[in-house]
This record gives sequence, structure tokens and C-alpha cells, in this order.
Amino acid sequence: MTKYLFGVDVGGTTVKMGLFDKNGNVLEKWEIPTVTANKGERILPDIADSIKGKMEAEGIRADQVAGIGMGVPGPVDGQGVIYVTANLGWDHVFSIPEVMQSYIDIPVLAGNDANVAALGEMWKGGGQGYKNMVMVTLGTGVGGGIIVDGRVVSGATGAGGEIGHLHIDDQETEECGCHNLGCLEQYASATGVVRLARRRLERDDAPSVLREKNLSAKSVFDAVKFGDKVAIEIAEKFGEYLGKGLAIIASVVNPEVFVIGGGVSRAGEVLFEYIRPYYMQHAFSGCRQADFVLATLGNDAGIYGAAKLVIDSQNGKN
Amino acid sequence: MTKYLFGVDVGGTTVKMGLFDKNGNVLEKWEIPTVTANKGERILPDIADSIKGKMEAEGIRADQVAGIGMGVPGPVDGQGVIYVTANLGWDHVFSIPEVMQSYIDIPVLAGNDANVAALGEMWKGGGQGYKNMVMVTLGTGVGGGIIVDGRVVSGATGAGGEIGHLHIDDQETEECGCHNLGCLEQYASATGVVRLARRRLERDDAPSVLREKNLSAKSVFDAVKFGDKVAIEIAEKFGEYLGKGLAIIASVVNPEVFVIGGGVSRAGEVLFEYIRPYYMQHAFSGCRQADFVLATLGNDAGIYGAAKLVIDSQNGKN
Repeated sequence: MTKYLFGVDVGGTTVKMGLFDKNGNVLEKWEIPTVTANKGERILPDIADSIKGKMEAEGIRADQVAGIGMGVPGPVDGQGVIYVTANLGWDHVFSIPEVMQSYIDIPVLAGNDANVAALGEMWKGGGQGYKNMVMVTLGTGVGGGIIVDGRVVSGATGAGGEIGHLHIDDQETEECGCHNLGCLEQYASATGVVRLARRRLERDDAPSVLREKNLSAKSVFDAVKFGDKVAIEIAEKFGEYLGKGLAIIASVVNPEVFVIGGGVSRAGEVLFEYIRPYYMQHAFSGCRQADFVLATLGNDAGIYGAAKLVIDSQNGKN
Repeated sequence: MTKYLFGVDVGGTTVKMGLFDKNGNVLEKWEIPTVTANKGERILPDIADSIKGKMEAEGIRADQVAGIGMGVPGPVDGQGVIYVTANLGWDHVFSIPEVMQSYIDIPVLAGNDANVAALGEMWKGGGQGYKNMVMVTLGTGVGGGIIVDGRVVSGATGAGGEIGHLHIDDQETEECGCHNLGCLEQYASATGVVRLARRRLERDDAPSVLREKNLSAKSVFDAVKFGDKVAIEIAEKFGEYLGKGLAIIASVVNPEVFVIGGGVSRAGEVLFEYIRPYYMQHAFSGCRQADFVLATLGNDAGIYGAAKLVIDSQNGKN
């Protein structure tokens, strides 16, 4: 009888890992560095070694482990195949489960990190009780995870939920990291908020506490809370882009709930005051019922979602 | 042993019906009028009576029928519950299977007509061999059906795939039928193409065969084929809106294929020459592999998809 499972969240600098019991309780959490040198060739064996070490330390046998779930920053399809990703140094298409299982004899499931985090938030976080959900992670970039009837939408080539690159502005002249112009991420990420702030501040000399600070998404929303007029204008612009973007997404998948996470979401529910009016303005009437909630798992969403991949696979959901 | 199934496509003026064998071959097709008077109270009993009549005529017993699948013009969720829809006169939320089964003792499944048509095209039409598909129906309006891993995305309140109301233009001043401004349907439907044509023709006196004709999507694309410069400009504008819209949809669900149907699609593959360049310009790099194909089932997509609902339900897919 299997008793345990592992959830692994592979990031650009560290790999977060969790040992879970079969009910989804975290028994232990730890991290190892992500070694991206030499085209990332050490990443998967390092993870396998760390799991083997943990099993040895805890006296866990391989036949007691139901599986290892993994979230990886890059396009991963429904079978765990990762398409080209620069983040980790990997430069070719391969099956993560296949390669991992050459290092450790335990079933492996893999998904895109944002999709996996969405699954975690639905299971144990802000999205509990929902089955149709859009998770939006407002960090350095904008990540997304789409869940339909309880299942992650990986997409044909692992690019399901890449809503950071949803085209939202025809007037943009600066390139997004993806080389397109006018992606949602250029306005709604932490760096996007800073860009909006810089553009607004350069426009005139209107007084603002933001002129005396290091600009960040946090300083903008802190200033909003103090009633700074320029900061409020910036928040309006942010809300217009994101509210419109979410309305567009709703016309495709009509979710029950939007779960907002990532660094920018630490501003709290005040965000919804700026997002919702634009959402309601642009959303198809049949989609306006959607709830807006904050993510609650923070950096742990990834390991929870990775563990849930294993549980769902046992229930025949993947 | 069940041998037969029925596929029903409920339209605003006629109900199309098909008797299928279990392998999905159409044995017979027929139509009855849609009586929308008195809040559409006759629609479901009329369908039940017509099916009973057909069964009697063919000597088919109820226990030989696996089920009745139905596509309905309105928001229908995954359980067959229809939310308010004006098209048919129905003015309250109810379960189509429950009400139908009060008239006929055969299992009933129901979905939104555009979603059901998408399922039909995937099964027997242009989308054969694909599992992740976006169907776009360019008719009087723009309908959509999203299929992920072989399953229709109904959405939380049956508004999944309502891509006709995807917000695409911030500058629009005329209202869409849904009361929003700048919906995809305002540019990419048959009436949308006429609007684009009218706006272009009014702008100056450039010569065009379109000035001597009744404007229609057909007359515009016929003129494109004859090299009419103004018509080509209109087609470019149409392609820009639709290509951009499909790129946006791809960033959400990353399909393998777009299947284009509806009256406008009778223009043929020439449409793709205008849509694809804008799709490639705005799509996230990871989504650019998508294929573009034409729908092939025409008005029969609905009855095929409705039949497929029954088959999928027997395979535990719904």
C-alpha cells in the first residue's frame, strides 16, 4: 500500500520539494538549488537524489510512494513532454517522466508550473470548492493556469494558460520578453505596474509620493492605500488592462472564479476594486457572475499542485 | 442492446433531427418547425412527439435507443441546464434532460448548439483526428466551441466558447447585440463583414465593384477573388480582427487546430490568407503551430455533435 507522495516545484534558482501523506498533508518541506549549468543536465538527477535521500532518512520504501508530481517553468503538455525552455538551460524536447524514471523507479507526472500551482490553489488554497477556475499569477511576469471541470488545460503544446502573452494593446511600441507587442504581462505583472507608473510619472509633474521612492508594484499599491492620486490613476490603468484581459479569458472558458496570486496580489483585496469594474464592463453578460478571490498558498501552491497531479492520476483523471 | 440514437439541433425557426446507428451513421434526417410562441412551451414536447413518431414508423423500441442528444441556442452547462435565453422564448433556468424526460422515457443530453457543432466537426468533419480544437462559426453572429482533450468546455454557466463576444476593439462606438462595445462578432460575422465594408466604402470614392452590388460577406469575398482592391482592404481588416482574436484564444487554450465554419467560411481557404498573418503576428510563439481548416459538415454539424454527446456519455466522457 502506498502511503506517500512527493510534490516538486522546479524554479529558476531553487527546487522546492514536499513530502505528503496520501491525504495531502505536508509532512516535510525542503529546497535544493537549481543547477542550470551545462544545459541543466544536473536538475533532474539532483531532484531524484534528494528524494532518494529523504526516503532513506525517513525509512520510506519505493513501493510506499504513489508518485512524484512536478511543476516545471516551461510549456509541458498533458503527457509531461516539455517543449523548448530557456529558463532551465534545457534545449530540446523530452519527456520529463521518462527521463526522471531513468534516475528513480517511481511514477512521475509533470506539468507547467503555473498550471500546477493553479491545481494546488484549487485543491488547498483560494480556489477550494471550485471546479472551473482561472488562476492568474502576477509576479515578475504574468502566469496563468486554466482549470476546466477539475482538469488542467495543458494545451496542444503545453502553452495552455499562457495568458501573460494574451494580446491586449494595439498601441504598444515596446517589445514584450516574448518579442510580441502589447502582451498582458507588459501591464499587469510587477514589472508591468512599474512601467505603467514610470509612464504616468513622466507625463507631467503632478505631485506623488511615488516620486520620492523606489518604484515597485508594492510602493504603488501602498501609495494607493494612502490616497495618492497619481498612484490611484496607475492602479486604474492596471485594473483596466487586467479586468479587460480577464473578461476576454471569460469569453473563452467562462470560469466560476478568478484566483489572483503572485507578488502583486500581496496588495490584497484592494486590487479587485480596480479590476472588477473593467471586468464587468467588458465581460459577456453570461460570464459576469465570476468570483474574484486571492490565492492563499503563496510559494507552496506549486508543491501542493504537484502532489495533486499524483492523486488525480491515481483517480484516473489524467 | 441499444442500436440507435437521435441527434437534435434546435434552431430559432426549425429543429433538425437525425436518427443514427451506434457507429454514427445517419439513417434518416428530417426537420420540424420550432414553435416559439407561448414562451416556447411546445418546443420540447414537439421534439419528443416527433421522435416517438419516428420510432413507431421504424418499429424502434425505447430500449433500443441509447439516448437523445440535443444542441440548443443558449448557454447550457455541463449538466444540460439552460440559463436564460431569449431566442426560443424560454424565460427561466431549467434542466433540459429533466424536462425532456417528462415527455419521453429515453436518456437525454444537452449542450450549447455551437459547442455541440464543434463536437460534430471533431467527430466527422474538418476537425477529425484532433482532440484540442477551437471551432469558429462565422454566421449572422460569431459562435464558438472549445474542445479540450476531446471534451467540450461548457463553462460555469454555459457561456464557454462565447468568443463572438470576446472584446477586440477599444475604439468601437456602436453597440453589439450583447450591449458591449467592440466584440469580435461586430467585425468577423457575416453582418460584421458588411459593416466593415460599409465603413470602408463611405471613407472615400475609391472604385470598387462593391459599390454596384448588394453588400454581403459573399459579395465582398467574391470581389476579393477578382482582385478588387477595396474588397481586399476589407478582407485585410476582417483578417486582422479574426486573426488577432484567434491568437488571443490560443493564449488561453493552445489548440491544435482552428476549424472555421458558418456562412462566411463558404469563401473557402482564401480566408486563411487574411487570417493567418495576423494570427502569427499576435500569437504567443508556443501557440503558432496551430492548423487552420474549414468545417465540412455545414448544417449537419449540430445533429452529428448531438449524437456524439450520447456516444461520449456512454463512454463515461460526460
